[in-house]
Amino acid sequence: MYSFKNDYSEGAHPRILNALLESNFEQNEGYGEDHYSIKAIELLKEEIESKDIDIHFLVGGTQTNLTVISAFLRPHEAVISADTGHILVHETGAIEATGHKVISVEVEDGKLRVEHVKNVLEMHTDEHMVKPKLVYISNSTEIGSIYKKQELEELSGFCKENNLILYIDGARLGSALCSEENDLKMSDLARLADAFYIGGTKNGALLGEALVICKEALKEDFRFHIKQKGAMLAKGKLLGIQFLELFRDKLYFDLASHANKLATLLINEIETMGYKFLVHSPSNQVFPILPNKVIEKLQEKYSFYMWSKVDDENSSIRLVTSWATKEDAVKAFIEDLKSLTI
Amino acid sequence: MYSFKNDYSEGAHPRILNALLESNFEQNEGYGEDHYSIKAIELLKEEIESKDIDIHFLVGGTQTNLTVISAFLRPHEAVISADTGHILVHETGAIEATGHKVISVEVEDGKLRVEHVKNVLEMHTDEHMVKPKLVYISNSTEIGSIYKKQELEELSGFCKENNLILYIDGARLGSALCSEENDLKMSDLARLADAFYIGGTKNGALLGEALVICKEALKEDFRFHIKQKGAMLAKGKLLGIQFLELFRDKLYFDLASHANKLATLLINEIETMGYKFLVHSPSNQVFPILPNKVIEKLQEKYSFYMWSKVDDENSSIRLVTSWATKEDAVKAFIEDLKSLTI
Amino acid sequence: MYSFKNDYSEGAHPRILNALLESNFEQNEGYGEDHYSIKAIELLKEEIESKDIDIHFLVGGTQTNLTVISAFLRPHEAVISADTGHILVHETGAIEATGHKVISVEVEDGKLRVEHVKNVLEMHTDEHMVKPKLVYISNSTEIGSIYKKQELEELSGFCKENNLILYIDGARLGSALCSEENDLKMSDLARLADAFYIGGTKNGALLGEALVICKEALKEDFRFHIKQKGAMLAKGKLLGIQFLELFRDKLYFDLASHANKLATLLINEIETMGYKFLVHSPSNQVFPILPNKVIEKLQEKYSFYMWSKVDDENSSIRLVTSWATKEDAVKAFIEDLKSLTI
Amino acid sequence: MYSFKNDYSEGAHPRILNALLESNFEQNEGYGEDHYSIKAIELLKEEIESKDIDIHFLVGGTQTNLTVISAFLRPHEAVISADTGHILVHETGAIEATGHKVISVEVEDGKLRVEHVKNVLEMHTDEHMVKPKLVYISNSTEIGSIYKKQELEELSGFCKENNLILYIDGARLGSALCSEENDLKMSDLARLADAFYIGGTKNGALLGEALVICKEALKEDFRFHIKQKGAMLAKGKLLGIQFLELFRDKLYFDLASHANKLATLLINEIETMGYKFLVHSPSNQVFPILPNKVIEKLQEKYSFYMWSKVDDENSSIRLVTSWATKEDAVKAFIEDLKSLTI
Repeated sequence: MYSFKNDYSEGAHPRILNALLESNFEQNEGYGEDHYSIKAIELLKEEIESKDIDIHFLVGGTQTNLTVISAFLRPHEAVISADTGHILVHETGAIEATGHKVISVEVEDGKLRVEHVKNVLEMHTDEHMVKPKLVYISNSTEIGSIYKKQELEELSGFCKENNLILYIDGARLGSALCSEENDLKMSDLARLADAFYIGGTKNGALLGEALVICKEALKEDFRFHIKQKGAMLAKGKLLGIQFLELFRDKLYFDLASHANKLATLLINEIETMGYKFLVHSPSNQVFPILPNKVIEKLQEKYSFYMWSKVDDENSSIRLVTSWATKEDAVKAFIEDLKSLTI
Repeated sequence: MYSFKNDYSEGAHPRILNALLESNFEQNEGYGEDHYSIKAIELLKEEIESKDIDIHFLVGGTQTNLTVISAFLRPHEAVISADTGHILVHETGAIEATGHKVISVEVEDGKLRVEHVKNVLEMHTDEHMVKPKLVYISNSTEIGSIYKKQELEELSGFCKENNLILYIDGARLGSALCSEENDLKMSDLARLADAFYIGGTKNGALLGEALVICKEALKEDFRFHIKQKGAMLAKGKLLGIQFLELFRDKLYFDLASHANKLATLLINEIETMGYKFLVHSPSNQVFPILPNKVIEKLQEKYSFYMWSKVDDENSSIRLVTSWATKEDAVKAFIEDLKSLTI
Repeated sequence: MYSFKNDYSEGAHPRILNALLESNFEQNEGYGEDHYSIKAIELLKEEIESKDIDIHFLVGGTQTNLTVISAFLRPHEAVISADTGHILVHETGAIEATGHKVISVEVEDGKLRVEHVKNVLEMHTDEHMVKPKLVYISNSTEIGSIYKKQELEELSGFCKENNLILYIDGARLGSALCSEENDLKMSDLARLADAFYIGGTKNGALLGEALVICKEALKEDFRFHIKQKGAMLAKGKLLGIQFLELFRDKLYFDLASHANKLATLLINEIETMGYKFLVHSPSNQVFPILPNKVIEKLQEKYSFYMWSKVDDENSSIRLVTSWATKEDAVKAFIEDLKSLTI
Repeated sequence: MYSFKNDYSEGAHPRILNALLESNFEQNEGYGEDHYSIKAIELLKEEIESKDIDIHFLVGGTQTNLTVISAFLRPHEAVISADTGHILVHETGAIEATGHKVISVEVEDGKLRVEHVKNVLEMHTDEHMVKPKLVYISNSTEIGSIYKKQELEELSGFCKENNLILYIDGARLGSALCSEENDLKMSDLARLADAFYIGGTKNGALLGEALVICKEALKEDFRFHIKQKGAMLAKGKLLGIQFLELFRDKLYFDLASHANKLATLLINEIETMGYKFLVHSPSNQVFPILPNKVIEKLQEKYSFYMWSKVDDENSSIRLVTSWATKEDAVKAFIEDLKSLTI
């Protein structure tokens, strides 16, 4: 049984484990004040081509989202999210648990655009309603689509004009930035967003996300929030070492490219067989629409998520590739699908 | 510069890193539903000699405390803690951030006793005040003292009579249970407490705490709380593998005993030199009172926390030993102190 | 300028003010433990025909909703509400501020039905999502529709089967129960709902809502929550006296009937003129669809809310009648509308 | 049985009830946007001699405190309060329920001074602890003492230097400002505090507190917070009318002076009989120390709070006078005490 269920089935890239081994008996400062974390932050600043940013390492995505949003907003302020947004659907109300409403916007392709945000602002006019303040987007989105530079420029411009915070959930940022269709750079993100995070867990790390705070006013006292939300590791070097390894020679991008390459292979071959897809997703998540009978057969050898019912005889499934996905496994899957298709 | 600052300066015990390496490319279920985590839970149940308990792995101590307390209490219920309690002082208001007051009780030796809890109950009489509901203790305490079986029996009995929840913070439970003065077993904890956690981070793990919920009524839906507080790892096997390694042949206790042995060595030798201690601490934290001049000299070669001013010429310091502390380093410290003492 | 904007433009029914005057210099216990409040609770229990209920007086609707929901739910539990629900739209995120997600369900007529709730349950399947637990409905709804007995029986049955709490916001309960189409009694509410409140502010009181808790398990310690949320009045008799007056001889129902009678008059006359309505609303809120030009003219003499755009030339407006609305004013409005219609 | 239990036993000053009657059938804007509230705010600005302040009317003290503190602080920031502080002891954890720790400082006379605040700052040094940010004081204090101008100047200066918010709970501000020992004016409060409230409930109103926000940065969006916390009355004019009446010709101060005069009478006469007091309290709360036997006899005719045990034979009691206290009742009490004393 080979799994295409997600991009966190395996452990970490071997270079990361080796780095942990090598530093293991060294005595270090706790709580992320070790020299590995400091070095990793420097490296990331170079990568992002900015010195005026603050970088913090947190353990996971939900934790990063709730810590960020809780730190950035006042009690009456709310978040705007696409209806597919991870914070809206799959974080057990983590944002609401910190006191903030998440306003859902129906979108087609997982992407929030200026008009969506504008509509929300127009509907929230006085103190009897929450005040929309933070725009939450994911890149790549939860359904694999990615933001183009032009789209992000527009959204960023609108947010700045309307005094809104733009925050990007980058759980799968690697895959987005390494997509063939991508035209964004790390430095664009720092210029256009007020904060974003660079996901490690889903791109080769054991765990860990690198939060980048770009807007000056949002930086103050952030370590207090990390600690308060239980997101500060005693052995903080565990995170620093991983990001150091991922970014010292572009390993992060190599891993994402590998995942994307195999996703593209899946897309191309499945398309050739005549199948359609639920959504255009030029990253490491693929959503083919297949006959239920074919899906049942595939499930005997592969695990993946059933995504949605399309009609009585067809459903979409989600196939995820990762840094660790074997090309042979992908090819075997394709062959099996071919044989079921004829 | 050798560090006695804490028990999380180094990485993890090598066996743990090896176990991570060996399992690295295996595909596993996410979110703690992998077979390592399941196996580790079985093992811990054997260790604790109980089947009627629920066990969950969380990342860190503050996170465990806030997730537990937030899950167990209704909004008007409060926590009772010794004034040295970690949640009261060193967690950036994490408990209050989930909505609950922590009532501080002045104690001498870090230990909460029946009379303390009784006093708090007597002062809280009506709906204009919070309702004290959860008794928080640490074993070993934040200043190294440990609970004896008799003390815990009394506290547990009083809590049961008064419908209070007894919760034990076991960040340093290994050291407590391996203390020469200890007479408690894991199974006693499960019998006497409603919940407790077995600390991994400070006893050989990279990170990770095993929460044990003993009281039936507190078990329901706990995984929702773990997820909501950002404490559920995508690669949950990272925690399961570590606890599996720590408990499959008593490594956990061996590591704690090592730390205690070196702490005892420090205590005995420092006592012999004629120095006193701030508190009796039969675990891996030692609080000698030394002349400020001596402390200054020691700081040239060793790092440790200044704990408290005793008088104009003397202060107490905190020395912490761990699973990774070198016996040679302890002996060198003793020799240096001796030479400064004469 | 006569106002049909809402049902809280005027003060209180004169009998209430007189009762306040008469009791003014009497010394009473504070915090709702005075004999007026106690008597009012007895009276309400008779009205509701139940002794097994707890009744508390709170100041306002938002406050009651947030106190109730925060008291009834555990942190991971969520509310299900129609998309017109007051808590969802017009309470500035008050529920989320206590930590709970409000799940919005699109409905046509303001009423939540079994199928809506069922869909929500089916979509929330594991601990990565909130756990839907409390069903929030309003009677009458925010757009004037009312629940029939059969509908409430079905909803209540489904909630009981699925261990959901059914809570009714009764800000305009008087108007609902006095509607010509109503077939519910107070005692039905107590039998079918787990809690509901009887709105005073919008039906003749200066301020005040009577919360009725029917389900045993939800009663414990409720006064702690009232106090904690700032909803406990020092001079609690202010609320008790008002409900005593409203219920000692059915004044409450007389006032609601008056409001409904005038609303019906508006509906009938406007219908006769050939206009349509946005929604069928047999209570004290009326939503006629009028030409924009007519609306502009009406606005010169009457104030009311613009509700929604219907097409380029027509909009719906909201007209609210209350215990204090003058029949002459309604008739004048009708005449003016007639003259604008020809 | 005459009650000296508190200053909220009776209703409202008759002039207030009359004003409510007179305005009763007038149609007004809701939510505090009526012309009475607007006029009352103007009047208060004159009284306070400042135009650069924002004024909001809220229903009660706990509600005002929790709304203010929750609006002013970020999640990691904490409150400093004397150990007698109302928010610390008698508000059922209302502040913690909004997420903030209240740091308790032991003081002798209910008053917080610079040294107390300084000590707290010195103990809170890094992100593992909360960040003390708001200094909460009450004037008069919960035990009847009052702040002198010099004391408030010092505290205010220290707060400004250390970027702390100074907030004054004025539940009994009338009594403090009308004390014979007082040297503060309303305008001093606005100059020295960042926010304070003028208590109505305990000085002649049915209910209502006037919150004054002086510091520019704290004003933004405050009405959102009032609404979110359930503190915005639909019939907001109920509060505006009362403050209009209280301040249009100094009624507020006349009422407080009356209460103080009778408290002074109690103090002088009780002192003459040779009794001591628990604390010096030149306002409307008096804490005589009396023999338990005498207290028992008094309880047959008067109700009041037992305050604290002084020794085996003596206790302190609390006697509170108010705008409604009858001079005859005070004299009768004195006579009764005299007869029990001989």
